[in-house]
Amino acid sequence: MDLEGLEVEEREREDFAGYKLRPTLIVYARSEEDVVRVVKYARERRIPLVPWGAGTSLTGATSCEGCILLDLSKMDKILEINDVDWYVRVQPGVNLARLNEELERKGFFLPPDPASSFLCSVGGAVVEGSGGMRAVKYGSFKEWVLAVRVVLADGTAVKLGEPLRKNRAGYDLVHLMVGSEGTLGVLTEAWLRITPLPRKKVITVMAFLRDSEAAANVILGLRKARVLPEFSEYMDVDVIKALNRHLSAGLKESEGGVLLIAVEEDQLDDVLNVVKVNSQELVMAEGEEAEKLYSLRAQAAIALKAEAAGAKFLAEDVVVPVSKLPEAMMKLKQMETKYGVRMPVIAHIGDGNLHPNIMVREDASATQLFEEVARMAVEMGGSVTGEHGVGVQKVNVMREQVLRSNGERVLSLMLGIKRLFDPEGILNPGKYVEAAAASRRLT
Amino acid sequence: MDLEGLEVEEREREDFAGYKLRPTLIVYARSEEDVVRVVKYARERRIPLVPWGAGTSLTGATSCEGCILLDLSKMDKILEINDVDWYVRVQPGVNLARLNEELERKGFFLPPDPASSFLCSVGGAVVEGSGGMRAVKYGSFKEWVLAVRVVLADGTAVKLGEPLRKNRAGYDLVHLMVGSEGTLGVLTEAWLRITPLPRKKVITVMAFLRDSEAAANVILGLRKARVLPEFSEYMDVDVIKALNRHLSAGLKESEGGVLLIAVEEDQLDDVLNVVKVNSQELVMAEGEEAEKLYSLRAQAAIALKAEAAGAKFLAEDVVVPVSKLPEAMMKLKQMETKYGVRMPVIAHIGDGNLHPNIMVREDASATQLFEEVARMAVEMGGSVTGEHGVGVQKVNVMREQVLRSNGERVLSLMLGIKRLFDPEGILNPGKYVEAAAASRRLT
Ligand SMILES: Cc1cc2nc3c(=O)[nH]c(=O)nc-3n(C[C@H](O)[C@H](O)[C@H](O)COP(=O)(O)OP(=O)(O)OC[C@H]3O[C@@H](n4cnc5c(N)ncnc54)[C@H](O)[C@@H]3O)c2cc1C
Ligand SMILES: Cc1cc2nc3c(=O)[nH]c(=O)nc-3n(C[C@H](O)[C@H](O)[C@H](O)COP(=O)(O)OP(=O)(O)OC[C@H]3O[C@@H](n4cnc5c(N)ncnc54)[C@H](O)[C@@H]3O)c2cc1C
Repeated sequence: MDLEGLEVEEREREDFAGYKLRPTLIVYARSEEDVVRVVKYARERRIPLVPWGAGTSLTGATSCEGCILLDLSKMDKILEINDVDWYVRVQPGVNLARLNEELERKGFFLPPDPASSFLCSVGGAVVEGSGGMRAVKYGSFKEWVLAVRVVLADGTAVKLGEPLRKNRAGYDLVHLMVGSEGTLGVLTEAWLRITPLPRKKVITVMAFLRDSEAAANVILGLRKARVLPEFSEYMDVDVIKALNRHLSAGLKESEGGVLLIAVEEDQLDDVLNVVKVNSQELVMAEGEEAEKLYSLRAQAAIALKAEAAGAKFLAEDVVVPVSKLPEAMMKLKQMETKYGVRMPVIAHIGDGNLHPNIMVREDASATQLFEEVARMAVEMGGSVTGEHGVGVQKVNVMREQVLRSNGERVLSLMLGIKRLFDPEGILNPGKYVEAAAASRRLT
Repeated sequence: MDLEGLEVEEREREDFAGYKLRPTLIVYARSEEDVVRVVKYARERRIPLVPWGAGTSLTGATSCEGCILLDLSKMDKILEINDVDWYVRVQPGVNLARLNEELERKGFFLPPDPASSFLCSVGGAVVEGSGGMRAVKYGSFKEWVLAVRVVLADGTAVKLGEPLRKNRAGYDLVHLMVGSEGTLGVLTEAWLRITPLPRKKVITVMAFLRDSEAAANVILGLRKARVLPEFSEYMDVDVIKALNRHLSAGLKESEGGVLLIAVEEDQLDDVLNVVKVNSQELVMAEGEEAEKLYSLRAQAAIALKAEAAGAKFLAEDVVVPVSKLPEAMMKLKQMETKYGVRMPVIAHIGDGNLHPNIMVREDASATQLFEEVARMAVEMGGSVTGEHGVGVQKVNVMREQVLRSNGERVLSLMLGIKRLFDPEGILNPGKYVEAAAASRRLT
């Protein structure tokens, strides 16, 4: 096994979040056969192999020292859009936004929409189990992956699942790959479920909120009114300011931040009832105007990156039960004050998925704050990660969550799965489940 | 470990499909602690332990000889309906129809609706990954289980997952339990996602079809028109006759059978356009009238059971890609003729999930026909089971499917998972994945 004929490079990389990658070799795959060759090569030499989609992971999932970085960005073909069986078959390197553009042309969409769609690869989104704004209605990638092709740690290429929504033949290995973060196999193809574009008129309500309690109150109100929005997003005033500063958004800098709620027309009255009492100002938009609001929200992370001006920041991704939102939002404010660290909050608030962004990284108190936020979520019956995954960043807090909520056996079952799929520890080793199973208990 | 204080029985049972159960002991659990005790008892003595929900499995999933049958039907409490976090927490023995009645009172529903809802347990439906009529729009149980409590083979009780729609902390063990058929753990509690009852007016169209090609043509037409129905069900003329005979349904016995298609109002015109040219007669219904049609369809299996008059029949559960429906429907007719065996077809036709019911069981040619149908599905890129699972009935054909479509390694990975969860082979042993991994290859 050698790498003859493959495109290779020797250099360092940095991912979007600023994690360093110091591979001995970067190899570009152009086909599944290439992937098989590289995996076998790495295995023979016992070199860690780390797949790379687009490097937008926020948790250091691709970070490595002395690995082979397998870059899949050139496997970027949309292989089939099946408009009768309602699936799309893609190579892993396809850009997610591009995929949705192609689908739209045929009257379909793939709902999960991480704000990184314009950057990230479909393969990365699948193995990260990415969510996004529409997850509150349509779920994350978990609910949209039908089948995958995967190269296992020994170089065997297999298909998991079938491109069918209903298939009960055997244990569900597909969902093990969703959320595997490159540790169980290299994804070389995926069949994703697609669905027709909504027919109903959707209206986006932009509500500039009175005070810091308003956002949570609105979401609780919507739940009680049985409103199921297309999305319901939140940005606090600090995020609004960053958008105004770096992207000239021209948004009102209201004390309580801003909510963006999109609903089908017949739920609009319910939304307005709940929103009005909590807002200083309301804007309603449809069509292109609504699109603009949606993409402003999608760019919030970019605005924060500009705000950080080259310095790193820690992006949290906790989930709390929706019923705990009022308490969680209040506690975040208190923590920000206590630590004296800026922590602007972006949130898929409708499903309790909060992204407080800690604007300092290399500082012990930042790490402490980071863990305090995660611990709050765990104590509330939530999760330390809703969609960004664990990587190297959330290893300790994931361990805490699983030990506290699921039991130690669950961690060892997860480790058992890693060993079943990758007995020699070739694939993205030493992170995520493996690291969580090994790491000391905090507190 | 003994069973003192637990309710036990010594007798035989038969499940709905007529499979025989000859346990040495039946034990009724009333709590998770009871389950732990029984599992430990069975493990100490190396006696196979088979969980029982309501015995409506159609694949012999509870069949056994000399096992301990763990009857969970008395763990039947709805523990919590959370109308803010939108989940319901239940014990496994809760009847599925009863659960939905309770939910409806609060404005919610749990969409997956196997036609056995009035009989089956929620626990059984979760571990079977049951589907039903609404799966074409809302998916099967796979998409509605958030978290579970499980007693593992060594008697450890753990929680898998969190009652959150978004949770990326670790590998997805929840989806391993969905579709585990009692082989990976005993489910003692489940958190299921619930959703508000639809607000939109839904209309049910009942179309009596001209000829045997019509049904598939209508479904293809709906797919091309991007119609996403609430359900789209099919019964052939033989099923209609059984409904008329045993349940006095009074349905027109049209040559091409009957389709039941429910859609939101704004898609009705599209449905009518497609349906009209293929039908002899159309009926439209709303509200209570529509409910009646829905429950007629739900009772089709009961009518066939009456038709069989005490004799057993083999219920198929194949899935074919929707695009292959015309070919599949034609081939089924040809096979019926070739074998000279009655094979009435009920189908969740909208997602390609077909239930041809072979009205003879104990006959070599019936088995041959059964396997020919399954093989057809596999050859078309479908599945041997969409929702009934594998049990003992579909072991060989599941093996064929996985070997052909996924690769031998996939079967051994599945077996590896069984061994990871149940190294001593206590839980419902010798069936499903274990049996498929061991069985000889057919053809
Ligand atoms: C601006 C911004 C906004 C974001 N917003 C969201 C959001 O709203 N919702 C959300 O869920 N996430 C969001 N994210 C993060 C999100 O995790 C990533 O966008 C995506 O999941 C990773 O895709 P990628 O192609 O960049 O993968 P990478 O970062 O390259 O890799 C991520 C992980 O997947 C593995 N991997 C990649 N490709 C493969 C493959 N083919 N086979 C096996 N393993 C593979 C890698 O080894 C690594 O472990 C955001 C990120 C950014 C930068
Ligand atoms: C008339 C009729 C119509 C049907 N229609 C449909 C349909 O439309 N769609 C569909 O998907 N299915 C349908 N089915 C079959 C369906 O599989 C069952 O209704 C259901 O999934 C099993 O529920 P149960 O409680 O009866 O489980 P059982 O039959 O008692 O058990 C099924 C399997 O689950 C295991 N099990 C049960 N409870 C537990 C537990 N708590 N923990 C671990 N393992 C457990 C058992 O060991 C067994 O392996 C139908 C069945 C009938 C009789």
